[in-house]
Amino acid sequence: MKKVFKLICTVALLFAASTSALAQTPTMQELSETVAANAAAGSFVLNSLLFLIGGFLVMWMAAGFAMLEAGMVRTKNVSMQCLKNIMLYSVAGLMFWAFGYNILYGGDAGGFIGSFGFGYDIPSHKDEGLGAGYTVASDWFFQMVFCATTASIVSGTVAERVKFWPFIIFVAVLTGLLYPITAMWQWGGGWLSEAGFSDFAGSTLVHSVGGWAALAGAIVIGARKGKYVGGRTVPILGSSIPLATLGVFILWLGWFGFNGGSQLAMGTIEDVSAVSKIFVNTNLAAAGGVVSAVILTQLFYKKIDVTMALNGALAGLVAITAEPLTPSALEAILIGGVGGLIVVLTVPLLDKVKIDDVVGAIPVHLFAGIFGTLVVALNSEELTRTLTLEDGTELIDTYYGFSASQLGTQALGVVAIGAFIFIISLVLWSALKMTTGVRISEEDEYTGLDQAEIGVPSYPEFVQG
Amino acid sequence: MKKVFKLICTVALLFAASTSALAQTPTMQELSETVAANAAAGSFVLNSLLFLIGGFLVMWMAAGFAMLEAGMVRTKNVSMQCLKNIMLYSVAGLMFWAFGYNILYGGDAGGFIGSFGFGYDIPSHKDEGLGAGYTVASDWFFQMVFCATTASIVSGTVAERVKFWPFIIFVAVLTGLLYPITAMWQWGGGWLSEAGFSDFAGSTLVHSVGGWAALAGAIVIGARKGKYVGGRTVPILGSSIPLATLGVFILWLGWFGFNGGSQLAMGTIEDVSAVSKIFVNTNLAAAGGVVSAVILTQLFYKKIDVTMALNGALAGLVAITAEPLTPSALEAILIGGVGGLIVVLTVPLLDKVKIDDVVGAIPVHLFAGIFGTLVVALNSEELTRTLTLEDGTELIDTYYGFSASQLGTQALGVVAIGAFIFIISLVLWSALKMTTGVRISEEDEYTGLDQAEIGVPSYPEFVQG
Amino acid sequence: MKKVFKLICTVALLFAASTSALAQTPTMQELSETVAANAAAGSFVLNSLLFLIGGFLVMWMAAGFAMLEAGMVRTKNVSMQCLKNIMLYSVAGLMFWAFGYNILYGGDAGGFIGSFGFGYDIPSHKDEGLGAGYTVASDWFFQMVFCATTASIVSGTVAERVKFWPFIIFVAVLTGLLYPITAMWQWGGGWLSEAGFSDFAGSTLVHSVGGWAALAGAIVIGARKGKYVGGRTVPILGSSIPLATLGVFILWLGWFGFNGGSQLAMGTIEDVSAVSKIFVNTNLAAAGGVVSAVILTQLFYKKIDVTMALNGALAGLVAITAEPLTPSALEAILIGGVGGLIVVLTVPLLDKVKIDDVVGAIPVHLFAGIFGTLVVALNSEELTRTLTLEDGTELIDTYYGFSASQLGTQALGVVAIGAFIFIISLVLWSALKMTTGVRISEEDEYTGLDQAEIGVPSYPEFVQG
Repeated sequence: MKKVFKLICTVALLFAASTSALAQTPTMQELSETVAANAAAGSFVLNSLLFLIGGFLVMWMAAGFAMLEAGMVRTKNVSMQCLKNIMLYSVAGLMFWAFGYNILYGGDAGGFIGSFGFGYDIPSHKDEGLGAGYTVASDWFFQMVFCATTASIVSGTVAERVKFWPFIIFVAVLTGLLYPITAMWQWGGGWLSEAGFSDFAGSTLVHSVGGWAALAGAIVIGARKGKYVGGRTVPILGSSIPLATLGVFILWLGWFGFNGGSQLAMGTIEDVSAVSKIFVNTNLAAAGGVVSAVILTQLFYKKIDVTMALNGALAGLVAITAEPLTPSALEAILIGGVGGLIVVLTVPLLDKVKIDDVVGAIPVHLFAGIFGTLVVALNSEELTRTLTLEDGTELIDTYYGFSASQLGTQALGVVAIGAFIFIISLVLWSALKMTTGVRISEEDEYTGLDQAEIGVPSYPEFVQG
Repeated sequence: MKKVFKLICTVALLFAASTSALAQTPTMQELSETVAANAAAGSFVLNSLLFLIGGFLVMWMAAGFAMLEAGMVRTKNVSMQCLKNIMLYSVAGLMFWAFGYNILYGGDAGGFIGSFGFGYDIPSHKDEGLGAGYTVASDWFFQMVFCATTASIVSGTVAERVKFWPFIIFVAVLTGLLYPITAMWQWGGGWLSEAGFSDFAGSTLVHSVGGWAALAGAIVIGARKGKYVGGRTVPILGSSIPLATLGVFILWLGWFGFNGGSQLAMGTIEDVSAVSKIFVNTNLAAAGGVVSAVILTQLFYKKIDVTMALNGALAGLVAITAEPLTPSALEAILIGGVGGLIVVLTVPLLDKVKIDDVVGAIPVHLFAGIFGTLVVALNSEELTRTLTLEDGTELIDTYYGFSASQLGTQALGVVAIGAFIFIISLVLWSALKMTTGVRISEEDEYTGLDQAEIGVPSYPEFVQG
Repeated sequence: MKKVFKLICTVALLFAASTSALAQTPTMQELSETVAANAAAGSFVLNSLLFLIGGFLVMWMAAGFAMLEAGMVRTKNVSMQCLKNIMLYSVAGLMFWAFGYNILYGGDAGGFIGSFGFGYDIPSHKDEGLGAGYTVASDWFFQMVFCATTASIVSGTVAERVKFWPFIIFVAVLTGLLYPITAMWQWGGGWLSEAGFSDFAGSTLVHSVGGWAALAGAIVIGARKGKYVGGRTVPILGSSIPLATLGVFILWLGWFGFNGGSQLAMGTIEDVSAVSKIFVNTNLAAAGGVVSAVILTQLFYKKIDVTMALNGALAGLVAITAEPLTPSALEAILIGGVGGLIVVLTVPLLDKVKIDDVVGAIPVHLFAGIFGTLVVALNSEELTRTLTLEDGTELIDTYYGFSASQLGTQALGVVAIGAFIFIISLVLWSALKMTTGVRISEEDEYTGLDQAEIGVPSYPEFVQG
């Protein structure tokens, strides 16, 4: 039994299987070591579990993007949109394994580019130590699904006219190289992190990065035929509102993992409380985005635009992502509400400048992402005040206030990451345009990508008008 | 290192990061305090985690209702049904934050109405103590999604003819005021709780409440045009059986969170065993509902009604919700099976009295909810008997039996909550009818809500017959 | 307070609610017992939680199969496919409760047939002891959803022409008898387990078993009318690619529970590390399957087959299921990639021999399942080598290598289980054919099962071409 006891101490197994009394009573020193080891192992398991649960919820967001986009494109492009989404998620996983993770975390923290090296070798579970307080593989999985989310954002904007393989090449570079580099600047302990930039779960690092890459693509590839005729914008309706709605509900669900998991730990009272508050704020911001978009479209257009309501939810979610923990519930609702406002105002604006964004990903992920990143400054300075309770006792209360210098740092991050991703994306899309071509032929665009590149129609039996 | 040790004791951090030996050996008193603090913190984390997992599963039920209803209404109303569902979930969250939670839990326990007060202030995660054994925010989240479920039930019944904004006003009052009041009677420690009423996860408090509100709405708003012609009921088929099926699978999945999470704790062997048994019984009851509905419709109609099978699953789930823990597996199957029977028998009955319930929410949530609440009495008295084992030793076995007095208390709860919700809902729907109006024009009903109030058709490209 | 302390020791409650100091300082012996009991209880809770989370994820796979199959059959059979899927999941649960679990685990380990006995009595949560280290009910739930998965595999292959009730009878026998018997051979500690057969999460025990049963059905029932005309195979397109895509995403998500939960424990650093690595390998194998199928169909057919890409993901998942823990990330990608290759090669092959598999379940679950089971031998021998580090120190490294004898054992398991399931399935399908009949009339096949056996069309309003 002594042996069992020793084992607990040395390899920090959380929980010995045996509950029988120890044959030989341990010394005080041994017992206190066991208590500490058990505690550390318990924390380790719970932190890893947060990554696993958060990870599978964010993986599920890939399905959300697929359904949202399948519902927002026309019938003739639905099979292709499904294919692109499952392929981009797959390619993101492989590229993040081959290069991305090494660049993000393997690198020279503080620098501008991480370490290269093919393939990330996840250690055997038998060699795992306490390390950073969670399993290496659970962290890898959680980081990978974030990387994939970035690529999912792009596919919606450039839908219905981009060629399959050039799109996949773009995704491979984005997920294997671009996303990891700017993510390294912050989450890899790089220069933005040292500058004090704050982006809890990635309003900028994930959503704006995807948005900038999408914007560059939309510019280089151009609008769909028939979208802008003369000075007018012709509405092109999506094939299925219920699929788009399902997609948004999936994304909303996944976002609990996205933001909640970004607390990175769940093994203490403080951490699990933070995760819980993040769940609440995330939900309230999404709700604020929906209600705001519904009211605004009712006021502006006399009818409620259901796609605006859906995008309002997403914009609220993106806006709260840079800081889902510190805001009060009311602040979360307002931040989300502004997200909804941004969508309602900027979707027509993009059409004014003839940037054709099929699903509205640029307003949702880029514009609301910038807003969310900047609004972090509102709650970024920790302040204290003395409250006098009814019985006369005084209490020191901690609260958060606006910080102008933080606003500057946030703007720096937005501009630096935006410039890097947007310029390289422009170059990359242009290079693809000049080599492989990025756009299908006008004839193929008319008949649809499903027939041109896949050969399997999405709904072969339904007669289309 | 002593400092670290102290920290563990005083702020009850679950797991110290360090596993290195304590530099200074603690006293017995200190160590035993640490052990107790670690244990309490571990329980706290796991209880909160149950709320978070249960909460996101129940949140997912909002998507289930959306898909079920989108599949059960006609194509011309699908976009509207999607909009209503995402909007009602959002409004429920905001209203529960603004008023609901205060009424439910802030109140004068034992009274009839909780405490009013605008906005619920979720404490900072840094101020969180052990409190009730879970984080305040995780509890708020879990309670909120229950509140939202109640509203989801209503939208299916009154679909295809209710005006959007009056419906949303009803939802706001239901989720901000009505649901919290009756929920307070039981879960807020109010008078029903003191009377001994038992409703584990809300067959009455959630499902019947939604059902009563829906029934009142159906009566005030009236049936869809063309549903009852002369003495005949004209079947109006839903637009998509696979979406309805998806909705039911989502609800079934979410119900593990709904019932399992209602154990409210997972940090002990007994609690996690209870959660596990609840999972099993919940699943078996749903299975019983499906098999019962399939067999009965085969016998009654010579064909199997797939929508009855879907509603059978839901009725089985509603029926087991009032007590998913105590029944044996066989009892769970039978309780669910009776749920299926109720649906098969009462769906035509409602049509007889010309109450037009588009998705069958009244049979599923109200009738099966009443049955589930009453059947609790079957297993409500804890009894003991002495068993003689083969080797002659005697064992005292605890089992549960029928209690007539419990049946009376269950009936009291059903009637009290039913009367309160049904009457106020009738008044509220009527008041809306007299002011804003609750029903769209006959012309709009003919062309559909999507065109009348949204302007975005659900499937614009598919030719409809 | 002493009482509280005692309670902790004796009933192994994980975490005492109280954090206050113990009034009476415990003895060293008492305290060390408490520490051990807390540790055991913590492990117990976390292991059970793994089963609950894994279980609800695998339950969700039932929805995935439903959506995949609803998308792959023609519109006229979609309602029926939805009904079959919710019914088979329900019947599987009831049969596994009535017979299956007893056969699988109640039995005479080492024998060929488990123990019969109607109904499995899940103990009250109050009687639960530490037992095997997890709750009985959570284990039951996890095993049940595996059993149901086996049945889900069959329904896709025999879709569009099998009669409802004979199919359900087959499912009842498969889930109540056949699956449990062969699963008992391995997971119940039976003869295959003793022979050294290795099948981590069921490439053979679940997926091939479903595949063999499906193959037998396809042979006995015959191909759909119009599928093989003269010497040609006529492509019959599915009704909805986005639903099929949704189904595959659901299955992919559920597979994290399927493979991750099969670690059976999460309460130690080693176990949670294993679960994490399984998540990563599972995801990479699926990604490998997608990319492989996309590239291969592009090369072979000049167009990308989206249904091949979807089945590529599933084949990758099936292939890694027999051993998702030991392979390196690169190996996982390659194993999944071969899964994709198998699908691309064998789908046309089945058509050559006129076996009509509507969704491609036989290539995915049977052929990739056999491959996955055999490839286990590649990493089945634990070897050691001495590595010399840069500083001269030597390190003993454990790695895994090919074992020819293991390959033999794997083949034995594949053949034994295959022969048993295939032959009995053939007999059972044939017996059904001779008694109830297994195939609908030619006229009903032409008009579709929805009209023939249900009466509710899947999409009543959409005009079909």
